Amino acid sequence: MESLYQKLMEYSNSDYYPFHMPGHKRQDCFKNMTILSEMHSLDITEIEGFDNLHQAEGILKKAQQRAAGLYGAEETFFLVNGSTCGILSAISAVAQEGKTLLVARNCHKAVHNGILLNRSKVEYIWPDIIEDYGIQGQISGSQVETILKRKQDICAIILTSPTYDGIVSDIRQICGLAHGYGIPVIVDEAHGAHFAFHEDFPESAVKQGADIVINSTHKTLPALTQTALLHVQGRLIDRSRLKDYLGVYQTSSPSYLLMASIDGAMEWIGKREAEGFEPLIGLRKALDEKCRNLEHIQIMPWVKGENDPGKIVISVKNTNVSGQELYQILLEKYQIQMEMAAPTYVLGILTPMDTLEGIERLAKALNQTDHELSMSPNQKDYTIADIYTKPQCKMTLWDAGQKEKHWENLENASGSICGKMVSLYPPGIPILLPGEEIGEIHVRQIKEALTLGMKVHGVSEDKKICIICS
Amino acid sequence: MESLYQKLMEYSNSDYYPFHMPGHKRQDCFKNMTILSEMHSLDITEIEGFDNLHQAEGILKKAQQRAAGLYGAEETFFLVNGSTCGILSAISAVAQEGKTLLVARNCHKAVHNGILLNRSKVEYIWPDIIEDYGIQGQISGSQVETILKRKQDICAIILTSPTYDGIVSDIRQICGLAHGYGIPVIVDEAHGAHFAFHEDFPESAVKQGADIVINSTHKTLPALTQTALLHVQGRLIDRSRLKDYLGVYQTSSPSYLLMASIDGAMEWIGKREAEGFEPLIGLRKALDEKCRNLEHIQIMPWVKGENDPGKIVISVKNTNVSGQELYQILLEKYQIQMEMAAPTYVLGILTPMDTLEGIERLAKALNQTDHELSMSPNQKDYTIADIYTKPQCKMTLWDAGQKEKHWENLENASGSICGKMVSLYPPGIPILLPGEEIGEIHVRQIKEALTLGMKVHGVSEDKKICIICS
Repeated sequence: MESLYQKLMEYSNSDYYPFHMPGHKRQDCFKNMTILSEMHSLDITEIEGFDNLHQAEGILKKAQQRAAGLYGAEETFFLVNGSTCGILSAISAVAQEGKTLLVARNCHKAVHNGILLNRSKVEYIWPDIIEDYGIQGQISGSQVETILKRKQDICAIILTSPTYDGIVSDIRQICGLAHGYGIPVIVDEAHGAHFAFHEDFPESAVKQGADIVINSTHKTLPALTQTALLHVQGRLIDRSRLKDYLGVYQTSSPSYLLMASIDGAMEWIGKREAEGFEPLIGLRKALDEKCRNLEHIQIMPWVKGENDPGKIVISVKNTNVSGQELYQILLEKYQIQMEMAAPTYVLGILTPMDTLEGIERLAKALNQTDHELSMSPNQKDYTIADIYTKPQCKMTLWDAGQKEKHWENLENASGSICGKMVSLYPPGIPILLPGEEIGEIHVRQIKEALTLGMKVHGVSEDKKICIICS
Repeated sequence: MESLYQKLMEYSNSDYYPFHMPGHKRQDCFKNMTILSEMHSLDITEIEGFDNLHQAEGILKKAQQRAAGLYGAEETFFLVNGSTCGILSAISAVAQEGKTLLVARNCHKAVHNGILLNRSKVEYIWPDIIEDYGIQGQISGSQVETILKRKQDICAIILTSPTYDGIVSDIRQICGLAHGYGIPVIVDEAHGAHFAFHEDFPESAVKQGADIVINSTHKTLPALTQTALLHVQGRLIDRSRLKDYLGVYQTSSPSYLLMASIDGAMEWIGKREAEGFEPLIGLRKALDEKCRNLEHIQIMPWVKGENDPGKIVISVKNTNVSGQELYQILLEKYQIQMEMAAPTYVLGILTPMDTLEGIERLAKALNQTDHELSMSPNQKDYTIADIYTKPQCKMTLWDAGQKEKHWENLENASGSICGKMVSLYPPGIPILLPGEEIGEIHVRQIKEALTLGMKVHGVSEDKKICIICS
């Protein structure tokens, strides 16, 4: 089939004169910004023959159908406002007045924003901590089952799998339980857009039967930042309502460059299938092999089919450096830019586009650094390592939003009710949500995160936190 | 100052190895899609030194401050989800439980979606029709004043100026009235991003004192589709709440290419100021001059400072062709792609990036076509020409969303309550909103629009309309 890119190139090379948006008129406006100018040549609006994302009937419909075919989904939508807009739309499509959403507490902030917008009641499920690496584990079927048995008013289940760290939950089991009650399951699979394409990856949430699945195409596939997909299947979702909300949360002027990029990634996959992802697996094996003699640094093992080989969790737990320190060493000494630093580990992302040169550089850097480290049991003092300590929920997100608030010094905040989401970014998972009681442990964790140089969203530059006036 | 583009180029040319998103790893993934591959080289995520749009403290903060300086706004935000997300955020920032929004009914659907999300009560103001061209006119200060005097619970005013057709309202007068009651004014100035930069344009809404103003940068400035700006000033807006909602309605992975494009457009303006917009004015004068002898086709005159020279409203009212027919003639016979066709006119957009060649082609096409036309008073039969006929509002958008609905043949829909927004796209202004009573006139208008080949969103392929079950 003709790709969107090809069709854009044809229009660009044609003699049609544009009295339409965008304002750059496909001109070479920026003499000193070559790539931006070249982008202009393909950047159009909804003109003749180019369909409309919000009512797709032509080339965009076909492109979305190709994506659905690749993922084995009944219906797939291109997203130009990231997984964020897919998550918001999914929640707005399933939320019901007076009913409760069953939500994994380690979901991305977009999920919590969706709950706020829908003024929903929520029951949270907390994942266990994988102690060896200080990361969050899976949501278990039994946790879900217990709540479904106890609470009669659950209208949907929302969880994140894989996590930022590559940990998956048993979606098949959870869907089996939920569907028994006629309840749909929404899976934020933003970090698992590649799962559908190789049997060594964990099974994709679509194949496991989730009702709505959201994939970021820019995280692990060759597509531009801000692009994503939403898949839907089964009879538990009101698709008309879902589509309406996709039109609410996304611009009415979606970028054809972003859409062409999603389509390009789909074409890339369609041509290669599993073979396209062999390099990722090969590189992961090479890294593990080259790092097998590390004494202090520990790489969380990849277990075929059970976690994501694309996530490299490099633990420095119980060593004399923090994750932030290792991150800086890799950046400054080796010019290696990692994805994220947590107090006890550093996270790297591996995709089919990585190179053996990169893997060798990382392995060399880790081996060299490992020699210079020693074990240090004191490191266990990081309270933030045991992050996301369960706070008491005092009111819904919406009710908290309606209250008067003020900014208070962190020191004095313990015992107050949080007025504004506090999260580490990355990964964007909230430590405290509006309406939750701030404990001493949270104050210590936030102060520690700031000391470690982590980015804490929701805390002011002068280290104040927004609380609800009592 | 260093532009974001320059900084991205530097990183692209550096030796840093990326174990971070995006998944394309800045590689040349697409051998046959050169421009997409080149885009990859600059497409990054929030890594060291590149700031974070949702908590801007570095290069993005500076870039936004430059934009604020150019527009004379107190604070300006880059938007990567179009004007849409700016409008949603603005409404969420001002909506108050139990209070009423005073809204121009000819606002873009994003405004109505914002009202839905906030479950707000609404009082609509309807613009007059400019009969000569069959387009919507301005919202007058006296209309606003009458309602403000009568209703005590208005919490904000929201209107669109300029309209899609380039008509502006007297924002200064409306702000004067509103601010007298302590009420903020939000102006969707998506189509007027250039107003701030030349004295021959209508005065910008920021200079006229509006509290929040949203500009699309891709409509009339040299920036990529899906980019926009939000300006805020004065003391009537809770800026913390506004910022929170900008974080809700925009992806947590904003595209650096889109942001670099906004920044590039700001740099372009900063270097040229008014001079940059002289070509637009010169070309508009050239077009008007070349078309001064048209006998049947009428171009709505541009009046300096009073309407937008960038909007070319080409009326075929009372001739023997429809706007759609002229649009097709221009497209097929002259390879000129216009922005929009309405039943009695065609709309073109002129920006500083247009060329004299384009203007000459359009003028020649219009003059040639004009010779072949004749006047035909029968054309007045288009009921859709007098579009946007005031329906009766029976319930709020939110309440309508909660009702059971079904799809009904257009023929049988008169007298029912609309269940789903019906709009022409472009311009994306609703004919009917959920909760409004469908009149016979609306059924006729929608059928006519379909017959004319216009894109009607909210009507199914088999010409059914969604109604609320009685």
